[in-house]
Amino acid sequence: MSFFPWVIWLVLGGSVIGMSGNDAAVDAEMTPQKALDQKLLETVDAAKLRAWHDMTASEPHMAGTPGDLRLVDRLAKAFADMGLEVEKHPFWAYLPLPVSAELEIVAPERLVLPLREVDVAGDPYDEDPALNAGWNAYSGSGEAVAEVVYANYGTKADFQWLAEQGVSCRGKIVIARYGRNFRGYKAKFAQAAGAAGLIIYTDPRDNGYGRGLMYPEGGFANDSSIQRGSIKTLKYNGDPLTPFVEATERAQRLDPETVELPKIPVQPVGWGAARQILSRMQGAPAPQAWQGALPFRYRLTGGAGLKVRLQVRQDRKILKSYNVLGVLRGAVYPEQKVILGSHHDAWGHGAGDPAAGLITVLEAARAFSEAAKAGLRPLRSVVFAGWGAEEQGIIGSVEWVEANLAGLKKDAVAYINLDMAAMGPRFRASSSPALKSVIAAAARLTPQARDAEQTVLENWLARGSRAAGALPRFGDLGGGSDHVGFVALAGISSAGMGGGGSPGTSYHSNYDNLAWYRKIVGKDYAPAVMVSQVAALTAARLANQPLLPLDPVRVGPETRRHLRHLAKLGRENGFFERNADGGMVPQLTRVDAAAILYEHEARRAVESIRRALDENTLGASALQQANRLLLDLDRAWLHDQGIPDRPWFRNLFAATDEDSGYAPWMLPALRYAVERKQPETLAQVERLYLNVFDELLRIVRSLEKLASGGL
Amino acid sequence: MSFFPWVIWLVLGGSVIGMSGNDAAVDAEMTPQKALDQKLLETVDAAKLRAWHDMTASEPHMAGTPGDLRLVDRLAKAFADMGLEVEKHPFWAYLPLPVSAELEIVAPERLVLPLREVDVAGDPYDEDPALNAGWNAYSGSGEAVAEVVYANYGTKADFQWLAEQGVSCRGKIVIARYGRNFRGYKAKFAQAAGAAGLIIYTDPRDNGYGRGLMYPEGGFANDSSIQRGSIKTLKYNGDPLTPFVEATERAQRLDPETVELPKIPVQPVGWGAARQILSRMQGAPAPQAWQGALPFRYRLTGGAGLKVRLQVRQDRKILKSYNVLGVLRGAVYPEQKVILGSHHDAWGHGAGDPAAGLITVLEAARAFSEAAKAGLRPLRSVVFAGWGAEEQGIIGSVEWVEANLAGLKKDAVAYINLDMAAMGPRFRASSSPALKSVIAAAARLTPQARDAEQTVLENWLARGSRAAGALPRFGDLGGGSDHVGFVALAGISSAGMGGGGSPGTSYHSNYDNLAWYRKIVGKDYAPAVMVSQVAALTAARLANQPLLPLDPVRVGPETRRHLRHLAKLGRENGFFERNADGGMVPQLTRVDAAAILYEHEARRAVESIRRALDENTLGASALQQANRLLLDLDRAWLHDQGIPDRPWFRNLFAATDEDSGYAPWMLPALRYAVERKQPETLAQVERLYLNVFDELLRIVRSLEKLASGGL
Repeated sequence: MSFFPWVIWLVLGGSVIGMSGNDAAVDAEMTPQKALDQKLLETVDAAKLRAWHDMTASEPHMAGTPGDLRLVDRLAKAFADMGLEVEKHPFWAYLPLPVSAELEIVAPERLVLPLREVDVAGDPYDEDPALNAGWNAYSGSGEAVAEVVYANYGTKADFQWLAEQGVSCRGKIVIARYGRNFRGYKAKFAQAAGAAGLIIYTDPRDNGYGRGLMYPEGGFANDSSIQRGSIKTLKYNGDPLTPFVEATERAQRLDPETVELPKIPVQPVGWGAARQILSRMQGAPAPQAWQGALPFRYRLTGGAGLKVRLQVRQDRKILKSYNVLGVLRGAVYPEQKVILGSHHDAWGHGAGDPAAGLITVLEAARAFSEAAKAGLRPLRSVVFAGWGAEEQGIIGSVEWVEANLAGLKKDAVAYINLDMAAMGPRFRASSSPALKSVIAAAARLTPQARDAEQTVLENWLARGSRAAGALPRFGDLGGGSDHVGFVALAGISSAGMGGGGSPGTSYHSNYDNLAWYRKIVGKDYAPAVMVSQVAALTAARLANQPLLPLDPVRVGPETRRHLRHLAKLGRENGFFERNADGGMVPQLTRVDAAAILYEHEARRAVESIRRALDENTLGASALQQANRLLLDLDRAWLHDQGIPDRPWFRNLFAATDEDSGYAPWMLPALRYAVERKQPETLAQVERLYLNVFDELLRIVRSLEKLASGGL
Repeated sequence: MSFFPWVIWLVLGGSVIGMSGNDAAVDAEMTPQKALDQKLLETVDAAKLRAWHDMTASEPHMAGTPGDLRLVDRLAKAFADMGLEVEKHPFWAYLPLPVSAELEIVAPERLVLPLREVDVAGDPYDEDPALNAGWNAYSGSGEAVAEVVYANYGTKADFQWLAEQGVSCRGKIVIARYGRNFRGYKAKFAQAAGAAGLIIYTDPRDNGYGRGLMYPEGGFANDSSIQRGSIKTLKYNGDPLTPFVEATERAQRLDPETVELPKIPVQPVGWGAARQILSRMQGAPAPQAWQGALPFRYRLTGGAGLKVRLQVRQDRKILKSYNVLGVLRGAVYPEQKVILGSHHDAWGHGAGDPAAGLITVLEAARAFSEAAKAGLRPLRSVVFAGWGAEEQGIIGSVEWVEANLAGLKKDAVAYINLDMAAMGPRFRASSSPALKSVIAAAARLTPQARDAEQTVLENWLARGSRAAGALPRFGDLGGGSDHVGFVALAGISSAGMGGGGSPGTSYHSNYDNLAWYRKIVGKDYAPAVMVSQVAALTAARLANQPLLPLDPVRVGPETRRHLRHLAKLGRENGFFERNADGGMVPQLTRVDAAAILYEHEARRAVESIRRALDENTLGASALQQANRLLLDLDRAWLHDQGIPDRPWFRNLFAATDEDSGYAPWMLPALRYAVERKQPETLAQVERLYLNVFDELLRIVRSLEKLASGGL
């Protein structure tokens, strides 16, 4: 066994980070937890990760294609070979397929623009015949010949600003750059503004020479790199035709005509093609914030002399694909599940997206399976998932959650998402409040990739935390990957984690393959080792500690942080009055007070439980009850009717940003009222939040009673 | 007479901005001051300003050339025609003249690069045979054939960073972009790093398509625009061979060989030429902050395959030029002088630099002369100055200050610098503390250019001030123009003012001519009207109010602000210990306390004087004494030995940044100690600052006594 720096940390115990869970108590002596941790850390192996990568990224495998079905079978076999219980969960989803696309300048002179990546030296993958030209899934089919309007990033604010300037998009082909929001919203806003078509391009300021060296010399977009991707922006995730229910073969389906999928043709291009259009524009100069890195002044309009033709044709069909799951049954509480997952489908080879995450799921599964064979089977079950059809709009995972909703709400402990998780050595995570301390604890036990002198936690803390003893910087969970179903539908504490910091991105381009990955992220698989270890140790603690290490306290201060943000937002948009001190606004004070009270009582309950654990006064039945209460804490945020205007999003703590798609909306029912400036809605949903805190209070008071033997 | 909104302001009196001078008392009734103000406002005229512009910018007139001497004569005649007393003050300065320059890529293939602006349509000036190719005055003469290194903005930090990366500039041709520091420091640091030559270019991110439309379509640099300019960076301003003394024909001069003028060839180019070099570089990619707006990744080194040849030849000669001054003698205190000035020399036609300022000096002079003819001669003298040879390194004005130092220290009230002052409608000013309230008062009486609905002050306040009643945002005076001699040598309260905000700049290029100005700044001369009016009203109050409107209080809080900045700087560079609260450091606390005490007593003195004025208890002799004390307040900052390492800079309150040239160093002796991390120096100069505050205290206590009739 090699020497790991975390041995030192074990001696120091849990006091380094202010954990409110029970890590300190458990770490203080050599326990089954420690043995399991060690086994997992030892087992994770760079050579195996590289082999998983060969297995998962060797051919294009878009959802519903033959490559997809072959990978599904390889995944099922891999889980079976580990001795896990395998579930191949089929679903039938309404998926788009590219048929044809053409883009050309027709005036002042004709110029056909390229819609596919060029073949570069040293990359044996980028000309695979199974790869597609650039396309945006769910684009409308049609043709437009029109003048052009430049719409910056195509955000809601950008289109509003154009309208305020008197620049009309009606009947025009809009050209907008990638970034700032989910691309589907660019299409939605362009269509709403009356555009005849939309071209989305990658500006070299955001990905290209403006960021670093370009592929193949470096890792950033060359002039032909195209970001593919879905532009579906429905008010629910999953299969477009079966919201709320599983997309079985015979499920009752919506009429596709009634589903708000894009109607205008939408086409992604590289900056080489975009440059041909943008450089020919003749209208008023764009403002400073709209300027990209192409070598001319950007303009708002092309003028009458510049005409572009865009033609896009796509099919939409119900296609079958699969989620693939491997289950390691828990030794004591097999019905309680910790779930680790990444999607398996990709636009092309998907070496980065998703395989850089999928391989860490596979390697964590292998490590747990080896541990189980060595007699270190965890108390609870651990589920390893490869989700299907994420790229078209988070479809497979949502269908699985919809299929298993009741059981998940009852027994799921946590979901850890590992999409694109091993893209570099700089570890980062977004998380529900309850999981932050356990993730930090796992990071505290894991050596930093490519720097064995420090732990992942030390490296992470050095990049942004403030006070001593504080947690490292976490993000809030937004949209854009497979945690959404778990959070929004089932109220399961979830996290996304991974490593970044490599000099480039081939995101959704035909260069996202093993040649790119091994050149830019590296051949050593050190980031993948690190992420597999942190993920496995996080899962190990959640699956194996007698008392669930879900932190009940943190949701209190985090609610208050989000309330302050809402107060600021509402003051800025004129919904709330500007007050001199910049503090909480009267409209949010009651929820704020409830969060303060809750934090106080939750802290007391945790101290009581910790004391009871220290003094060994918590019996087996009380422990079970305490765990049940901890799971109830998460579910208390669910509201069956959902948030305003989006009934599918039932979690009152977190949802996807309704105006951008990727970002999080925290306390989303309140956020909705503030964004839309609706005082009545605010008053109504305030009641919902007060109810949540009533329920949270009830639960921690029960915990306190349990700890003192009174329940 | 037209209706001006300032009539409303007069009713409100001086309370709108928290003035500690005596404006309120004077404004409250119809006084000679108000009549003079009205006359000045009425007289300033756009058509006259346009005519002055034709007179001052119709031909290239670099210092020492025939065009320069012709303009000097036209200026002298103009002042004489106004009925002013004219002084043509000659000086003999050591000036450079361009002889030849060549720049070419010699490997991998030969490419000669352009060193002069192209002729653009609609500009009848840009091909004037008297214009020069691009050059940097005081460049060394010589030739280099070498590989290239990119040094970003060529700041001290940039060269340090290159050295830390192991990138050597020794024997290389360095290429750096304009911006962030005075160009002379780029040359100084490049030479110190061992470079064989330096190319300075204008990056389109800073001036070009990265900012807006390019000339002639818009106002920003096209690919051929070249910023000329001096690269002299001596520890004194003025003629390089006669520091401290006037550069008369027979003055004792330094041996030029002993003066630290640049030795390596330095050449400015446009971004079209720079692009040819930068795009051929092959070395390691530059970091994000070093990336400009050219369409490729910038590199740190060119590599062995890229060779550039640079050859520059210049003469340096003692040439004669002139300052031209017009004096309106004061009616009561003619020896007391308020000075308004702008240089008159230019690199080419100089429509912007300096004529956009020089015309406001001429028009203010004309307005005062008309007022005097109408019986409104001010109490004190007003001096209108056109300085020579500013561009080569602030030569003419410094020689005039050196020639008249004793008289200026005794009787000069203030210096107002108007270099490039009318470049757009957005008014801004940098100022010594004592002048801020009087400038704001003048801005309060002047209608905003192109928006008669508001005053200049309202428009200015809307762009940056915080609390109600506060002053608008002022800058601190740095280097780079003709105020330097007045501030550094004579301790005269000074300000620079002007308007900006036009969409472009032709700074120091061959496009800085009337065609550019009238297209980009405008044909209406509204900014020039506005600036002439604010400058005239500022001068009018300084020249005409019985009690000098110099604010004695503000230097207290401003000293404290600068001390806080020094404390922060010293903590950041490790000179001071980091303390938890981020407040004042012990090493600066005594000066801070002295400033607090001073502010308190100065405020009391001002209140007493104001009361005495209100109650008419201040006799003529006491008023004279009070004015003398107010002038003494300014001079109290002078230290005969100067600041550490720069004896020419004698003002302990403000100097030019020693490491960048343009920026200000406030409390420069303390700043030096903090920058250079010298505790002994800090202790020594602390004593100097305590002495200054002892003297300031003595003066305000005398003022207080005067006011209460006790002196």
